[in-house]
Amino acid sequence: MVMRDDASAPSAGRATAEALERRIQFALEADRLKSVIRRTRLVDGSRHENSAEHSWQLGLLAMLMADAAPPGVDHARVIRMLLIHDIIEVDAGDTFAFDTSGYLDKADREQAAAARLYGILPGEQGDELRALWEEFEVGESPDARFAVALDRFQPLLLNFYGGGGSWREHGIGRSQVLRRMGPIEHGAPALWPFVLNVIEQACALGWVREDGE
Amino acid sequence: MVMRDDASAPSAGRATAEALERRIQFALEADRLKSVIRRTRLVDGSRHENSAEHSWQLGLLAMLMADAAPPGVDHARVIRMLLIHDIIEVDAGDTFAFDTSGYLDKADREQAAAARLYGILPGEQGDELRALWEEFEVGESPDARFAVALDRFQPLLLNFYGGGGSWREHGIGRSQVLRRMGPIEHGAPALWPFVLNVIEQACALGWVREDGE
Repeated sequence: MVMRDDASAPSAGRATAEALERRIQFALEADRLKSVIRRTRLVDGSRHENSAEHSWQLGLLAMLMADAAPPGVDHARVIRMLLIHDIIEVDAGDTFAFDTSGYLDKADREQAAAARLYGILPGEQGDELRALWEEFEVGESPDARFAVALDRFQPLLLNFYGGGGSWREHGIGRSQVLRRMGPIEHGAPALWPFVLNVIEQACALGWVREDGE
Repeated sequence: MVMRDDASAPSAGRATAEALERRIQFALEADRLKSVIRRTRLVDGSRHENSAEHSWQLGLLAMLMADAAPPGVDHARVIRMLLIHDIIEVDAGDTFAFDTSGYLDKADREQAAAARLYGILPGEQGDELRALWEEFEVGESPDARFAVALDRFQPLLLNFYGGGGSWREHGIGRSQVLRRMGPIEHGAPALWPFVLNVIEQACALGWVREDGE
């Protein structure tokens, strides 16, 4: 690696250099998130989005929609959670929201990925970020519920304003979309009426299938 | 748009719906940042990166490298600054770091972009985010200096660990890289020895031209 390995340097200096190396290695592994392709398309429909730019847009939405969260949410923490929430995908891949078979071993794949990836970081930092990711996955704390709500809301925006997007592409039905968007109702309650309205319109336009549920 | 326009709704409700519409419109405009292509390549060299995923990686680096900042930096604020710092590029485009002619009208193009884009948001929020972007551009506050340092550090990582990247592609010289990386010395002092070391090695490997300065 590029740092000087000088045995005569004070040990604090060596520890810092080693910590920096590990953080850089983690950032370089995370770079592969730019090559993890999601099913959602950009609003202009030109291509599918990747998980890195998706994560950026979630951080942005957390800034923009802060007042849609229930009281007590720690917004800075939500943004940090969203920036790392998909990093395990560089090992585990993205699982399409409506792919039921892919979900069967999703948890195992993601736990192995988290162990390897967060293990690259210096101990305490790795533990802290892994715990933040776990909290998102469990989705029960107020911070995680708001973060999960935004993670559902963003593809809804891209699909709706992109003319149907992955809903149309994969013939997704109303009940599937409603279930998928469900966490928004309590995680970001101020967005819920808007979401229901979008689903109504998407069904009326034929972008989401009426599946009789 | 998709919100109900119900004149009998309480005015607070209408104001909220309008604010939500404007935030969504801003997020949709910002989606175009995924199509603004930078000169830097992904670490694996497969393609150039776009400004949306670049912004995500800066947010991530701000989390990882928090202790490389001088004391007094507000880290949550730096992350927010980094998430929005390039949004004006959806109108103004990305200006290559080593393109001197492109820099001549950069400020004008970017001010016009900021006026239009941040003008989409509800007044107070638009003003706040525009001010945060201006602070980054001016680059003088401790938060902005750390943010700018990371904005220089990230392409250094991609170029170096990607085998020379845009340095080699454009025949960039040592003095140009040193000037470009200069803000790291005081903005993120703990990273500076690493940066100097990388530049030395990149020169020794012939990835950065020795330009005799």
